[in-house]
Amino acid sequence: MSLSRRGFIASAGAGVALGAAVGAGAQAYADSSEPVDAVDLSTSYDFYTGSHQVGIATPPQRHCIFMTFDLVAGATSKDLQVLLATWSAAIAQLQAGRTVGQMEPISLSAVATDTGEAYGLSTAGLTVTVGLGPGVFDKRLGLAAHRPKLLAPLPALPSESLDPKLTGGDLSVQACADDPQVVYHAIRDLARLGRGVVEVGWTVMGFGRASAGAEQSTPRNLMGYKDGTRNVSTEAQRAEFVWVDDDAAWAAGGTYQVARKIQMDIEIWDSATMQTQHEVFGRTKVAGAPLTGTREFDTPDFHATAGGKPIIDPDSHVALASPENNRGLRILRRGYNFTDGLNEAGQLDAGLLFIAYMNTPEAFIRLQTKMGRSDKLNEYITHVGSGVFFVPPAPKPGHYLAEQLFG
Amino acid sequence: MSLSRRGFIASAGAGVALGAAVGAGAQAYADSSEPVDAVDLSTSYDFYTGSHQVGIATPPQRHCIFMTFDLVAGATSKDLQVLLATWSAAIAQLQAGRTVGQMEPISLSAVATDTGEAYGLSTAGLTVTVGLGPGVFDKRLGLAAHRPKLLAPLPALPSESLDPKLTGGDLSVQACADDPQVVYHAIRDLARLGRGVVEVGWTVMGFGRASAGAEQSTPRNLMGYKDGTRNVSTEAQRAEFVWVDDDAAWAAGGTYQVARKIQMDIEIWDSATMQTQHEVFGRTKVAGAPLTGTREFDTPDFHATAGGKPIIDPDSHVALASPENNRGLRILRRGYNFTDGLNEAGQLDAGLLFIAYMNTPEAFIRLQTKMGRSDKLNEYITHVGSGVFFVPPAPKPGHYLAEQLFG
Ligand code: HEM
Ligand code: HEM
Repeated sequence: MSLSRRGFIASAGAGVALGAAVGAGAQAYADSSEPVDAVDLSTSYDFYTGSHQVGIATPPQRHCIFMTFDLVAGATSKDLQVLLATWSAAIAQLQAGRTVGQMEPISLSAVATDTGEAYGLSTAGLTVTVGLGPGVFDKRLGLAAHRPKLLAPLPALPSESLDPKLTGGDLSVQACADDPQVVYHAIRDLARLGRGVVEVGWTVMGFGRASAGAEQSTPRNLMGYKDGTRNVSTEAQRAEFVWVDDDAAWAAGGTYQVARKIQMDIEIWDSATMQTQHEVFGRTKVAGAPLTGTREFDTPDFHATAGGKPIIDPDSHVALASPENNRGLRILRRGYNFTDGLNEAGQLDAGLLFIAYMNTPEAFIRLQTKMGRSDKLNEYITHVGSGVFFVPPAPKPGHYLAEQLFG
Repeated sequence: MSLSRRGFIASAGAGVALGAAVGAGAQAYADSSEPVDAVDLSTSYDFYTGSHQVGIATPPQRHCIFMTFDLVAGATSKDLQVLLATWSAAIAQLQAGRTVGQMEPISLSAVATDTGEAYGLSTAGLTVTVGLGPGVFDKRLGLAAHRPKLLAPLPALPSESLDPKLTGGDLSVQACADDPQVVYHAIRDLARLGRGVVEVGWTVMGFGRASAGAEQSTPRNLMGYKDGTRNVSTEAQRAEFVWVDDDAAWAAGGTYQVARKIQMDIEIWDSATMQTQHEVFGRTKVAGAPLTGTREFDTPDFHATAGGKPIIDPDSHVALASPENNRGLRILRRGYNFTDGLNEAGQLDAGLLFIAYMNTPEAFIRLQTKMGRSDKLNEYITHVGSGVFFVPPAPKPGHYLAEQLFG
């Protein structure tokens, strides 16, 4: 867009001061000098990949549906076993770009076993990640002896306002891919395969994406801020902070998953001044730099002051969350944006599907206890949904998820 | 996926008949011999393109948000004029990959005029298409003399069950792009620019996509069927069926837009036999061929019989909708799939955001009157939302949408 078109806009409308606010200071977000930006939909992940389930260290895809399931009354450990074996087989097929059964049976009196809407689509980097909630290890199924040591419902935490309909879950399924129809199909057909054994609990449909061209570019959340700049990103960090290694043998290579549905109050956020937004996060907006630096990946200096006051407010989101101020603690965040459409004020709502992985749920509890008390961000967000799950390691070929539980 | 893995799945689970239904007859939907499937996000459309707004003849993108707006009480024609000029300027910026204002004002006490979440993203083929509802030409604004000849609220139609909260609208905005965040941002920032003059009415967030590799491949709806096989697709057809040319001068090159939110009852659909599904559409599922042919683009033969009965049921969806049985009538369909998450039965719901373009709304009324009475598909769908709009032609450079109304 050339300056002349900007000039036009300010003067458009023949006598009416039309569109004057528009275009003033508009910022190009697509830089045409960058390499062509394209999503490769042919990526695929093997389900029997190694020690860990995919969808955790996997680079975030553009779409995600997170869904929880609850065991129906009377479900037995055998029912759960069959479900996990069935889901494992189905996920292996789905990630390889196949249907879970026949979408057009040859016998006309038969009912299709796959719903068909992903037929003809590419794998689109689909990953399906299954977690087991605390309920799996309660008295109902007789599996209590196998409970992962640290798996228990999260305690009440400061400043949350959880909706009971969006809380808990015996199982979680996180399906992510670069094609929304592939994600929808995976979740729909897994839910169908679960009928009779599990009922659907709560769900969040997320989106988000890494930006054009540059490798290291960080996606933005719906507050307009880069989200994921300082994150667990190397295998060494994952070994230290994510994968479980001091638990029962069956749990080795697994991890804990904390999922939160966090509503944003974007009306209020959008009318906050630039200064307030900078203070809330402790970072600038376009660059995503710490207020003590100029570039996104500059290390924040939490001791720097100006005029006797800390430059990064101690109650800013990053000051409260950073490892420097939490005895080195880190979690792997893998969040997605969501909108449920129109909110009560008749505006497009917004939120963050926060999903984090860690080798102890205590990491989340510690951070959120502190942030729930004093994070400046709290004025603009509400935690409404919550669940904690143990994500077992990936099965070896010839086996299925959490098979050792049923020894 | 090799046969051996299929063999494994059927025998997985060491002694438990696990996952037996899964994998039996599984069908590959990704054919690795096809060229790499990728979405090019660098496509962009100029807003001042020619005679017609984009988003109509434009190849469907993967995401779409459709939103209606209603003028607030007391809004004047001047208010509408300023809004259309402002939106035009903003849309031109958005489609060119720019923000609509500053996302990080230099003055820290200022409030950002762009919400920022699309900053750094590619244009992603964004098209924003604006329509004017019948209300724009009622007594309120004094524009009645300019009413496009055929613009009037749709009459009640058979078998619909419209929700008043999802009906009508003074303005419509259809934003489509290959990146959901680009679509979200466009709608959010246009809605913000409209505050004080319009309120949000109803909205549907759609997705869908053309499939891997092959040029002519047709996307599937959430019933698993190819949708769009026989559609208005050439410029000659658009000239005949889509663009308005016998109306007021300002309306030439415009078109009528009918939007319907159609809920699917996928529980019932998923348990219907293959024969029933074939009969409902008059087409097969994998190939999408008419029941009288074998390939997708074979022309259906509505006269062919077997055993004295028509092969394509006269009450099948395609028999009722096809031009052969409607004196040559055609409409341009540009639909998207949607899901609102969990329905009352606790299952992932599904539906079709039906958007069609035509040079007379009578085309839709005639078809839907007939289909609403006897379409076999009616057992599985419910029309819950509805609106009709006149989509003015694209503005010439230096002008804005529907400028001639305010002459
Ligand atoms: C809607 C809610 C939230 C939003 C919008 C949000 C946004 C952000 C942003 C913009 C950053 C700075 C960029 C980066 O380093 O990624 C950040 C950092 C971070 N956030 Fe959040 N966040 C939210 C909730 C949470 C929650 C619930 C937690 C955990 C309890 C959390 C933990 C962290 C951590 C650990 C960092 C990295 C801090 C550092 O090392 O500098 N965030 N978040
Ligand atoms: C959820 C609702 C609907 C579904 C699932 C659906 C699905 C389909 C399918 C699968 C086809 C065959 C493939 C094709 O030619 O595109 C088709 C054709 C068609 N549909 Fe629909 N449709 C729906 C609603 C409607 C409505 C409301 C109308 C208009 C009133 C309509 C008009 C047509 C037309 C004109 C054709 C082409 C028929 C031909 O020329 O053979 N459809 N639809």
